[in-house]
Amino acid sequence: MTGFGAAALAASKASGVFTPDIVLADDPPPFDLNTGVAPLEVIIPTVVPLVFQRVSPAAMDATIVLRITTMITNAWFDAIAPYHPTAKGVYSSIARQPQSEATLFNKNVATAYASYRVLLNVLPASTGVWRGMMQSMGLDPDDGQQNADNPIGIGNIAGISVAEERQNDGMNQLGNEGDVIYNRKRFADYTGYAPVNTAYQLNDAGRWQPDIVTMDEGLFLVQQHVTPQMQFTETYNNLNLQSFNTPPPNKSKPGLPNYKKQVDEVLAASAGMTDQQKMTAELYDNKLLSLGFVALFIAQSRQLTFDEFVQYDFLVNVAAFDTAVVVWKEKLKWDAVRPFSAVRHVYGDSPVTAWGGPGQGTVSDIPASQWRPYLQTADHSEYPSGSAAFCAAHAEASRLFLGSDALGWTVPQPMGSSRIEPGVTPQSDIDLHWDTWTAFAEDCGNSRFWAGVHFRPSIQFARPLGRRVGEKTYEFVQAHIAGNA
Amino acid sequence: MTGFGAAALAASKASGVFTPDIVLADDPPPFDLNTGVAPLEVIIPTVVPLVFQRVSPAAMDATIVLRITTMITNAWFDAIAPYHPTAKGVYSSIARQPQSEATLFNKNVATAYASYRVLLNVLPASTGVWRGMMQSMGLDPDDGQQNADNPIGIGNIAGISVAEERQNDGMNQLGNEGDVIYNRKRFADYTGYAPVNTAYQLNDAGRWQPDIVTMDEGLFLVQQHVTPQMQFTETYNNLNLQSFNTPPPNKSKPGLPNYKKQVDEVLAASAGMTDQQKMTAELYDNKLLSLGFVALFIAQSRQLTFDEFVQYDFLVNVAAFDTAVVVWKEKLKWDAVRPFSAVRHVYGDSPVTAWGGPGQGTVSDIPASQWRPYLQTADHSEYPSGSAAFCAAHAEASRLFLGSDALGWTVPQPMGSSRIEPGVTPQSDIDLHWDTWTAFAEDCGNSRFWAGVHFRPSIQFARPLGRRVGEKTYEFVQAHIAGNA
Repeated sequence: MTGFGAAALAASKASGVFTPDIVLADDPPPFDLNTGVAPLEVIIPTVVPLVFQRVSPAAMDATIVLRITTMITNAWFDAIAPYHPTAKGVYSSIARQPQSEATLFNKNVATAYASYRVLLNVLPASTGVWRGMMQSMGLDPDDGQQNADNPIGIGNIAGISVAEERQNDGMNQLGNEGDVIYNRKRFADYTGYAPVNTAYQLNDAGRWQPDIVTMDEGLFLVQQHVTPQMQFTETYNNLNLQSFNTPPPNKSKPGLPNYKKQVDEVLAASAGMTDQQKMTAELYDNKLLSLGFVALFIAQSRQLTFDEFVQYDFLVNVAAFDTAVVVWKEKLKWDAVRPFSAVRHVYGDSPVTAWGGPGQGTVSDIPASQWRPYLQTADHSEYPSGSAAFCAAHAEASRLFLGSDALGWTVPQPMGSSRIEPGVTPQSDIDLHWDTWTAFAEDCGNSRFWAGVHFRPSIQFARPLGRRVGEKTYEFVQAHIAGNA
Repeated sequence: MTGFGAAALAASKASGVFTPDIVLADDPPPFDLNTGVAPLEVIIPTVVPLVFQRVSPAAMDATIVLRITTMITNAWFDAIAPYHPTAKGVYSSIARQPQSEATLFNKNVATAYASYRVLLNVLPASTGVWRGMMQSMGLDPDDGQQNADNPIGIGNIAGISVAEERQNDGMNQLGNEGDVIYNRKRFADYTGYAPVNTAYQLNDAGRWQPDIVTMDEGLFLVQQHVTPQMQFTETYNNLNLQSFNTPPPNKSKPGLPNYKKQVDEVLAASAGMTDQQKMTAELYDNKLLSLGFVALFIAQSRQLTFDEFVQYDFLVNVAAFDTAVVVWKEKLKWDAVRPFSAVRHVYGDSPVTAWGGPGQGTVSDIPASQWRPYLQTADHSEYPSGSAAFCAAHAEASRLFLGSDALGWTVPQPMGSSRIEPGVTPQSDIDLHWDTWTAFAEDCGNSRFWAGVHFRPSIQFARPLGRRVGEKTYEFVQAHIAGNA
């Protein structure tokens, strides 16, 4: 299960959609360090809802969320490495423990303290929550020992090492980049990125325009491009970023015939959306319900051990994290226009044929200026697609770790369960199903086009980036498991 | 109690600050239509937390919140008018009821249905909550009768009349202004307002710049000027808007000596803030804890009757609402720069002496570019001050309604209870106290200057606007009570 997993649990309960058997009960029994799995049963169910509440309510800020979940799974990996016959932590080299110490109890205690130290560092405003999390397991949040001969010390060392190594990794977690001393803003941009377009005027129809977002009751805000500095953030794989490139988004050059053609493709896709496509788009838009749930499904259906679960979760998080660095470098390089801007630019107030908004179906007389994509466009530039790249990375890493392209995941979508068109879509109960990881990643990318948040080339050229990073990450994690890193 | 009152209850419980005796118990007894006061005990406690949750989490969007609370108190006023010896509703003329019908039960039922009809109209996304609110009082949400001979029909008529008259009042509640058919955005600006400055560049140092806001964990958004169309919204008093004017904000003209002088005043105030000033600024920044709580205090200390309570609450809401129309007209006319922009413009990265941020006290070496006001600057332009005008209107209306300038309100501020500097400010238990409404309004306005969100002239020239509207509103409400409207 990825860091996205537990929030997926909560989301699934709230929305009434498919919930794997592994999902926690509403009133779970007290956690037992001797028999439970702390990361799965305590850490993530505490962390993820809070992350989404405080960091990214609309889950549109994948870079920050990913960084937090990656640091947590990293801390788990490093905390149990000393109990493994060969594994080596990424940011700590703790003496290997006797095999008799490799108990579930010790691994639970070590991963709990490791998580706690990372959380205090990365989400300090919620310290009270993290203390309560420890106490709920019967663990003392004030035990700060760093003796490498017991699980408390091992967990503390692992967590503190991850936090210290990562807090100045380029993401500006401390808000100190640029010699800021006073009123530091955590994760603030320090690259000086400013869009050439405003939310009110498209000065250059080839470049990114911030969207105006609303909670639908009167509060309007303008997007700021999320974390431009992700492009300068240290990768786990020490990637040679210069070798990861996308061709120029030539179809987004205003004035050329391809610009209008690309717009017409998006409008045609909008007009042609099926219930299957709409529900697929909604699922992948929510990284909890897609990347989180599919990892839950894997943990359960493949009956992963504690170690395998931690390794797999760390693997898919790092694969997506490093992919984000690559993708953000390209996003900021091209700064390309999103469909919502280009549609208005080409057609203005002229009527077009497209989806007419929630519950309206396809209409032939919607002024282009009133068109909206099926999904809210995220707060970063168009090209290449983050989602398409993340899913490609996740799929490639999963294929290699699990040794097969087989997936076999079915997600029922009850009649009317749409978040965008509640009570209307789908018109009858339907199933989404993926036989293979290949199909999973394919639909993930395509759904961004169906939903009007990406042009085709953004998806096409994102996939190879994700696949390459997924492959490298698999090698990276395997080397650390084998102790060859 | 204003519409702000009940959220004040919740806020006070959460923050542990002063709570009047009137505050609801944590586990209130079941509401009794024969003995309770529905607006106070059920309607507001249901509505206001939801308004703040869905409409304006940071309570920075006073115009929209005010409009909702004004429509609700309007519906109450109109719903009980038929039971009053002389009163006449604003948007309905329901036949006067026999005096024997003027029971607490009937007034409770009428105000409940009136509230319900307004809420379905103005906050339709929360229909389930409003239905539940009615059911909690044992009332049938599906009883839509409009017979003027019983309290259900009277309440429905009153609420529907307010909703129908107000839904096209210029605030664009339906999102239909500008012939928008598809994907209407409720309360969207239709005036075409666009700031001349971006969040990233101050093109004109005399004009408003949107601020960048953050939840402090990585999500950054840019302000959009809230509801420019408030200036075109129908007032209750049929105000001649041309007669409400402010002189040009000459001190905000870049390049003139007064520009720097005005900036230096703000920095000096920032450097000199006392605990008393900080806590006063926090109180008035939260319209729940200030305008809401003082009205609660009045209801309780003056032992207002049901009718007096509804009249007073309607009065202070309309006073602030009409004031907002006048203030927004001037805000949009002048579009003046806020202190945070001007401070950076004058001093750039040069060190200044000012408050150094939460817990830092006054420092002498803060680069001006790192300075922040004690309070977050709200999402609208500088001149004149909304808060100063609202408080002046509220105070004037209260003076006239209550027949005295006497107030006598004390608000204890426990040591360390600051929201901005928790655990630090105030350094010991202190009391805030106002003997008179005059002192109340004076501190309200000044606190915006101490806290760095306004220059002095914005406060000075806001007050007369609010006082005049407060006076007119008193006449307006009195005329409706006397049936002379």
